[in-house]
Amino acid sequence: MRPRTGVWLVGARGSVATTAVAGCAALAAGLRAPTGMVTEMPPFADCGLPPLASLVFGGHDTASCPLPKRAEALAAGGVLPPRLPGAVHAELAAADAAIRPGGPLPGDGRSDEELIAAYTADLTDFVREHGLARAIVVNVASTEAAPEPDDDRLPPSSRYAAAALRAGCPYINFTPSTGLHHPRLREAASVSGLPYAGRDGKTGQTLLRSVLAPMFLQRALDVRAWSGTNLLGGGDGASLADPGAAAAKNEGKARVLADTLGEVPDGGLHIDNVPALGDWKTAWDHVAFDGFLGSRMVLQTIWQGCDSALAAPLVLDLARLTAAAHTAGRAGPLPDLGFFFKDPDPGSSSSLPDQWRALLGFADALRERA
Amino acid sequence: MRPRTGVWLVGARGSVATTAVAGCAALAAGLRAPTGMVTEMPPFADCGLPPLASLVFGGHDTASCPLPKRAEALAAGGVLPPRLPGAVHAELAAADAAIRPGGPLPGDGRSDEELIAAYTADLTDFVREHGLARAIVVNVASTEAAPEPDDDRLPPSSRYAAAALRAGCPYINFTPSTGLHHPRLREAASVSGLPYAGRDGKTGQTLLRSVLAPMFLQRALDVRAWSGTNLLGGGDGASLADPGAAAAKNEGKARVLADTLGEVPDGGLHIDNVPALGDWKTAWDHVAFDGFLGSRMVLQTIWQGCDSALAAPLVLDLARLTAAAHTAGRAGPLPDLGFFFKDPDPGSSSSLPDQWRALLGFADALRERA
Amino acid sequence: MRPRTGVWLVGARGSVATTAVAGCAALAAGLRAPTGMVTEMPPFADCGLPPLASLVFGGHDTASCPLPKRAEALAAGGVLPPRLPGAVHAELAAADAAIRPGGPLPGDGRSDEELIAAYTADLTDFVREHGLARAIVVNVASTEAAPEPDDDRLPPSSRYAAAALRAGCPYINFTPSTGLHHPRLREAASVSGLPYAGRDGKTGQTLLRSVLAPMFLQRALDVRAWSGTNLLGGGDGASLADPGAAAAKNEGKARVLADTLGEVPDGGLHIDNVPALGDWKTAWDHVAFDGFLGSRMVLQTIWQGCDSALAAPLVLDLARLTAAAHTAGRAGPLPDLGFFFKDPDPGSSSSLPDQWRALLGFADALRERA
Amino acid sequence: MRPRTGVWLVGARGSVATTAVAGCAALAAGLRAPTGMVTEMPPFADCGLPPLASLVFGGHDTASCPLPKRAEALAAGGVLPPRLPGAVHAELAAADAAIRPGGPLPGDGRSDEELIAAYTADLTDFVREHGLARAIVVNVASTEAAPEPDDDRLPPSSRYAAAALRAGCPYINFTPSTGLHHPRLREAASVSGLPYAGRDGKTGQTLLRSVLAPMFLQRALDVRAWSGTNLLGGGDGASLADPGAAAAKNEGKARVLADTLGEVPDGGLHIDNVPALGDWKTAWDHVAFDGFLGSRMVLQTIWQGCDSALAAPLVLDLARLTAAAHTAGRAGPLPDLGFFFKDPDPGSSSSLPDQWRALLGFADALRERA
Repeated sequence: MRPRTGVWLVGARGSVATTAVAGCAALAAGLRAPTGMVTEMPPFADCGLPPLASLVFGGHDTASCPLPKRAEALAAGGVLPPRLPGAVHAELAAADAAIRPGGPLPGDGRSDEELIAAYTADLTDFVREHGLARAIVVNVASTEAAPEPDDDRLPPSSRYAAAALRAGCPYINFTPSTGLHHPRLREAASVSGLPYAGRDGKTGQTLLRSVLAPMFLQRALDVRAWSGTNLLGGGDGASLADPGAAAAKNEGKARVLADTLGEVPDGGLHIDNVPALGDWKTAWDHVAFDGFLGSRMVLQTIWQGCDSALAAPLVLDLARLTAAAHTAGRAGPLPDLGFFFKDPDPGSSSSLPDQWRALLGFADALRERA
Repeated sequence: MRPRTGVWLVGARGSVATTAVAGCAALAAGLRAPTGMVTEMPPFADCGLPPLASLVFGGHDTASCPLPKRAEALAAGGVLPPRLPGAVHAELAAADAAIRPGGPLPGDGRSDEELIAAYTADLTDFVREHGLARAIVVNVASTEAAPEPDDDRLPPSSRYAAAALRAGCPYINFTPSTGLHHPRLREAASVSGLPYAGRDGKTGQTLLRSVLAPMFLQRALDVRAWSGTNLLGGGDGASLADPGAAAAKNEGKARVLADTLGEVPDGGLHIDNVPALGDWKTAWDHVAFDGFLGSRMVLQTIWQGCDSALAAPLVLDLARLTAAAHTAGRAGPLPDLGFFFKDPDPGSSSSLPDQWRALLGFADALRERA
Repeated sequence: MRPRTGVWLVGARGSVATTAVAGCAALAAGLRAPTGMVTEMPPFADCGLPPLASLVFGGHDTASCPLPKRAEALAAGGVLPPRLPGAVHAELAAADAAIRPGGPLPGDGRSDEELIAAYTADLTDFVREHGLARAIVVNVASTEAAPEPDDDRLPPSSRYAAAALRAGCPYINFTPSTGLHHPRLREAASVSGLPYAGRDGKTGQTLLRSVLAPMFLQRALDVRAWSGTNLLGGGDGASLADPGAAAAKNEGKARVLADTLGEVPDGGLHIDNVPALGDWKTAWDHVAFDGFLGSRMVLQTIWQGCDSALAAPLVLDLARLTAAAHTAGRAGPLPDLGFFFKDPDPGSSSSLPDQWRALLGFADALRERA
Repeated sequence: MRPRTGVWLVGARGSVATTAVAGCAALAAGLRAPTGMVTEMPPFADCGLPPLASLVFGGHDTASCPLPKRAEALAAGGVLPPRLPGAVHAELAAADAAIRPGGPLPGDGRSDEELIAAYTADLTDFVREHGLARAIVVNVASTEAAPEPDDDRLPPSSRYAAAALRAGCPYINFTPSTGLHHPRLREAASVSGLPYAGRDGKTGQTLLRSVLAPMFLQRALDVRAWSGTNLLGGGDGASLADPGAAAAKNEGKARVLADTLGEVPDGGLHIDNVPALGDWKTAWDHVAFDGFLGSRMVLQTIWQGCDSALAAPLVLDLARLTAAAHTAGRAGPLPDLGFFFKDPDPGSSSSLPDQWRALLGFADALRERA
């Protein structure tokens, strides 16, 4: 029997994690078509990716609401189909049983070292108990504010990342939080021999920008201003209502314009918490550009999507691709996965078409080895 | 002295032609930056393209309004900068003097053969009188309805195309009209030894679709419906108010979706003549797509642009690239110029990123030879 | 015990009718707040309107799918809340039992007179069997094409309207179909002593236009072009894919602009059948207007709504208001209900604010009498 | 000869003032139709309003760029027609000659009292030199931040307002700045016997909201979130980039929703300075509302307008109406002019249709007296 692969979700009871676990079960059971999953498309066949049915889920979270109940709430909000939570109840309950408390909770006096040791033990136990070939750690927790330079504690995301390194687990940062990008983790990451990838999943407005900005460039059109507003509710909206978290988020979003256009055009970027919208996000972009002889033109885009439904399949894609990279002996950052990220590892283009070709090349390399 | 290159515009007194002539003069004189011109970007340096200052304009038209006056009207409508027509009056007048009557006008009893012979003589005279190295014929006339299969006359665009072949001129079809794509011209084209390219310049809605459709595909998102409405006035709006012309136009627009997505999704495409909008076009697109687990999402785009300002620099780009291809001995269709067209020659992708890379390859090949 | 009021729906198994029956039951049982119901707001208290709990539903339809099953389908499409059909199953089944076959079905050789007589008997039976004080006939069937002037048969909607007159039932036309507006029914309507109202419920794009057009007028802004596109699927989309039905629909929509602005501006109006959208409609409007010194400005609106959910409460409002008008002895057209219609009875303004004040006056008159 | 009326503009060299002066001259000379001017419509005929040709302009400003030059800059940015500044050069120069320095400039040590006295003298001189029947003071200067409660100096706008009172001039506040709304001016205003009106001209997004919010209310639709983003450049964009000024602006904008809907829905409001947009503003609004049985629907509006072109005719309207009110002996606030303001005087509705009827009543009262 083929060995199974663990997917350890930091933020395991959030919307993205719940959707990923429920969706993986639905796809593995043939209940739904694999819409939105990149690695189920033909170019990724025969690449040695772990099958969806072989994935085993666990994770850390400070919340206690069980996954089956979270899934019901997501179905009520239209994120999951109405009857799906019932159909995959067993798989949700199994994943829920493998969730360990994150931290620190209020009043928790543990040091960074104590927390990292506890997380590492959780990961080691997970791999051993389920007899896993390996486990991939994926950060899907709420966005943190960027850490203060003189803070002597690691930010939470970096503590989980440190535990991944210590437990020998490849690591994926699907959020703009610090994770492995902390100066005090640099050395450990580089000698770990593990593959890792990030940062900040590209699901909506930035995805659009990564195809539109190259278009303007290639047509020699002069982008004068690019302004954007995001409206969203749900947990993501609430956490991004914190100005520090929003700033961390926006930094990644701006990168695609700066990298592609060579300079940042006029215009700001807002993320508004609108509780009434729930998990559904609306992103409006307004691009003022000049054409031939200075004629002023405008492109506007309105994207209405469900962030969890956009993110969850990419989380599964990344876990599978990184697992295969680990099997293949890859170590260090994986810029070829820049297709998935707003703020990819050095060496990646900011243009989606270029990123897509890099990803196909990555798949080809895996296939040759597989 | 470097030999000069002719650009012979079929529809030489239309908005696109007038903007191209005025803009070329303004750029050659250093009055404006080359915004919107692809071939003025670094990848096209040293490719042996004829300099803008070396281009000589002429053409056919059935209209009689002189170019300087047309340019004033375009400036009043905001298409050209207010003072530009005055600044390039001499160049407009020179081009106007090289325009010959198109046809047939009402009551004109000439046969196809007589018309083609007359056009050929006009082209030959143009080359000789100006001592040109070559002349490129570019069709920028109003869109025709598709011809009836049993019509024994050639459509007007095909008569001009036949004259280009006979006069030894490379040919570019910037409209969806038939041009060289007529069965009775196939043989002549294939033995002509001339390069040619087409069809239907890609300036707005289709340009967007050619980057957005690949994005949906690469992210495994299931496009369920793609609907569009175009509002425009001016001469283009009036000519597309003819259902036959609109049908010809829409066929090219649909191709990018069919080619990229593998099937044509639900949804129609309207082109409305709205005289009050003048030369400014608004295109609204509504894309309904399904994501993970069938969640329904929507992207809408609104493009507000000036068609003449978008088309004119591409006409100059195409004339320069085709002239260089002719110099280099290229013959037959040029699928590497698919970047510029809605309905490109066989062998071209429908995806803008792929077309961009093909165009860069074309430039590299020219540079090696130059 | 207060006498009950019948609501007889022509098209009783369609989306609007099903939503009205299910919603009325949900509101009467206190399961939902009366969002979207005009007559549940304070200005309509104490006007002698029949309570929601006193309404009894029946109707005609040529379709046979039972209402509880239709309601399940609407819940699957997001039109009704997931658990509502189960909660009001009894009321849906009761209404379904009171539905009689419409006609003519294919092969049905009955004359107009035979059909009208059969419908009249259905109505009379309905009133008698349920001991109703009165029954209001409401046309919510699919839109018909406008009848040919020389057709010697009545259009279907007019046969049902004739039966309403004959059975002594007030009549409401919520569609653009002919209904009572047929020359051969004029005399019967005028001597019937019955109140009636129409035509074509105003639920989305036209609702918006009826507040925006007066705004432009009052600000002396010069509307130059008003263009619109509607995308919708479901049964309504399919029936409006018929050009005749779409033309009938569009005539009412254009009236608000013509009446308010004094002339019809440039611009067309499309209704596209996009099956993938189901019962959800998207309407885009583009208004080009000139301001001070001729400066060109643009307003665009995008309305994303569920037509059935917008129409159903208005159907209940109209049935209640017309029942109260009947009780009060009103006869003939009710222009004071123009608030609800795209193409209201003569004597109504086309401006929503004016229509709102007329409606408040109507309520006041009812209250004084009540 | 009919006595002339002065219009004294605080901020006399800004875009709005320049457009008002140039436009008034163009209309008086018959060069342009009075599009955008409310008081040139039939309901305002025979109301005793001063004719446009009888208006004489002057004002205060701290800027020194002459009006003819400002007008040229506005024409270059598309705010004024290209040739208008030349055609009304004499009138612009005459108004420019009547502009007096505002203050305080940097290093200016004058006290509030000294400044007010100087402004009062300027006003008195203006009236005397031109032999005016009266002069109306209109604040069209850049928006100030709201004053600190413990600041012992008056904000600039209040100093100009105090001078208006002292010089016996009716006062209009077209901005959200404090103006007459300062506690230390309350007594002087109430005993002045002068009419005054304000605050903050309603030109775009708020105008729309004042017709859309009543529509939702009258249809019993439940507005859950109303979010907005404004993009603009020019002087207005720059001054609103100051958070204090933006806050002052937003307060008025929120009032229409709070007043109409009874509570402020979710959602924020941004004003972004985007220099590349110049004087052209784009406002996007996103309204999430619930309909029957809780179905979620969305309306989005995109308004692209030129603020100066929208504001200038209203400034002329207000000056004329307030002049007529002064002639008619009206004193105190004029809530009947709420039609023009975001944050109108107490006693005004927030609904545009109600404001329109109040304005018509105001005109009727003037006409009866005239």
